Amino acid sequence: MTYCLAISVDQGLVFASDSRTNAGADQVATYSKMHIYSCDKDRQIVLLSAGNLATTQAVIAKIDRDIRGDAGKHLMSVDNIEAAAEYVGQILQTQGERHEAAVSAAGISAEATFIIGGQVNDRRTRLYLVYPQGNFITTSQETPFLQMGETKYGKAILDRVIQPSTSLDEAALCALVSMDSTMRSNATVGPPLELLSYEDGSLQIDHYLRLEESDEYLLKIKRAWNDSLLSAFKMLPGFTWTDLKNKSTGG
Amino acid sequence: MTYCLAISVDQGLVFASDSRTNAGADQVATYSKMHIYSCDKDRQIVLLSAGNLATTQAVIAKIDRDIRGDAGKHLMSVDNIEAAAEYVGQILQTQGERHEAAVSAAGISAEATFIIGGQVNDRRTRLYLVYPQGNFITTSQETPFLQMGETKYGKAILDRVIQPSTSLDEAALCALVSMDSTMRSNATVGPPLELLSYEDGSLQIDHYLRLEESDEYLLKIKRAWNDSLLSAFKMLPGFTWTDLKNKSTGG
Repeated sequence: MTYCLAISVDQGLVFASDSRTNAGADQVATYSKMHIYSCDKDRQIVLLSAGNLATTQAVIAKIDRDIRGDAGKHLMSVDNIEAAAEYVGQILQTQGERHEAAVSAAGISAEATFIIGGQVNDRRTRLYLVYPQGNFITTSQETPFLQMGETKYGKAILDRVIQPSTSLDEAALCALVSMDSTMRSNATVGPPLELLSYEDGSLQIDHYLRLEESDEYLLKIKRAWNDSLLSAFKMLPGFTWTDLKNKSTGG
Repeated sequence: MTYCLAISVDQGLVFASDSRTNAGADQVATYSKMHIYSCDKDRQIVLLSAGNLATTQAVIAKIDRDIRGDAGKHLMSVDNIEAAAEYVGQILQTQGERHEAAVSAAGISAEATFIIGGQVNDRRTRLYLVYPQGNFITTSQETPFLQMGETKYGKAILDRVIQPSTSLDEAALCALVSMDSTMRSNATVGPPLELLSYEDGSLQIDHYLRLEESDEYLLKIKRAWNDSLLSAFKMLPGFTWTDLKNKSTGG
């Protein structure tokens, strides 16, 4: 499994990903799921990948080949992030379909999903989630974040905290807490975690963090969040039980 | 969808269920998923149901018929809760199989799942989750709760709070918070909520609560929990970004 998320706030974008890849519970490996396409002159593009590892690797390899070959449209030549999402969607669909029949026959899904975001020239930062079928969605004022993989455990804190006015550092911290909640509940989501924030208009990425399982800061956050939740729980107002009136009982 | 959970602590058991039933997003109804089989003399048994509504209703109807007919084994005659789980499992398997082929052909699952718990005579309270296939699991010291339906959104708080030594009222409050987190994230889990706690050895149920969506206490809990989480988040230690060294970049 995988957990990746990206957040779009007024100040810019935040990306977070785990690094655990597993084919069954007994075949676990570590792969970075964060891919950066960077050119200080005109663009910063970040890709997060989830799903079938062979498909995601095939997509990344094709993206890299296109850049090296400089043949027409590629990530370093597209005009804007929406065009980049369209381009990644096309590759994803093609690569997914190539092995789909054989992989499905083995009872495995060849599907993969990507989050792509960043900035090209002086256009506003944008964020897209690209589906296995090649179509894609973006964020909105009401839903300023996108998630892939094991999305449920870490969604509550995003729903509560993230708004367009949230600062980049707060959004990054929230992404970390969301990641921690997910790792706690799903053993197939695991460190090292990668965290990146991109400031709108900067055209450079200087805010990056890679946290190993034993990282002191990660442990501090885990403890602090756990303690805070328990204190918050202890402060909730108690309640008064009623009797079983209006409740039909068997027997 | 449905969200039901039950918690086993040293002091006794807690049960919680939502009441929303939906067949597609445009066909939503309200049904209680909490069924109580009660006899002050020797037993208190609580059943929570999740899954295909026709199957769960068929199971409950059969359980009731067996009690009325008093033919051999039924919920008011079994010796212990494990035997009750075995009995419910047999009915569930039979009822599920009856319409399985036709229902599957329509692209719907006929499966249902039950949580059953309580006390018979002076035996210790026990809790079981009965699968559609009729087999079942119980709790352990390390995992003192069982969940059915939309289980992921509400699991984090249970993982953090619930231990065998947790008081019954704390466990009930935690079940309510777990239910609130789930309702916030999944529109097909909804009120009225039912909450019940059973004190080990009491052989009577006098702690029951039914909360409508507009219930003042439920609104107070929602607000208090949201505010506490936001304060807890604001108190987390901040972090220091590093640069992108050791991170390969494309382009």
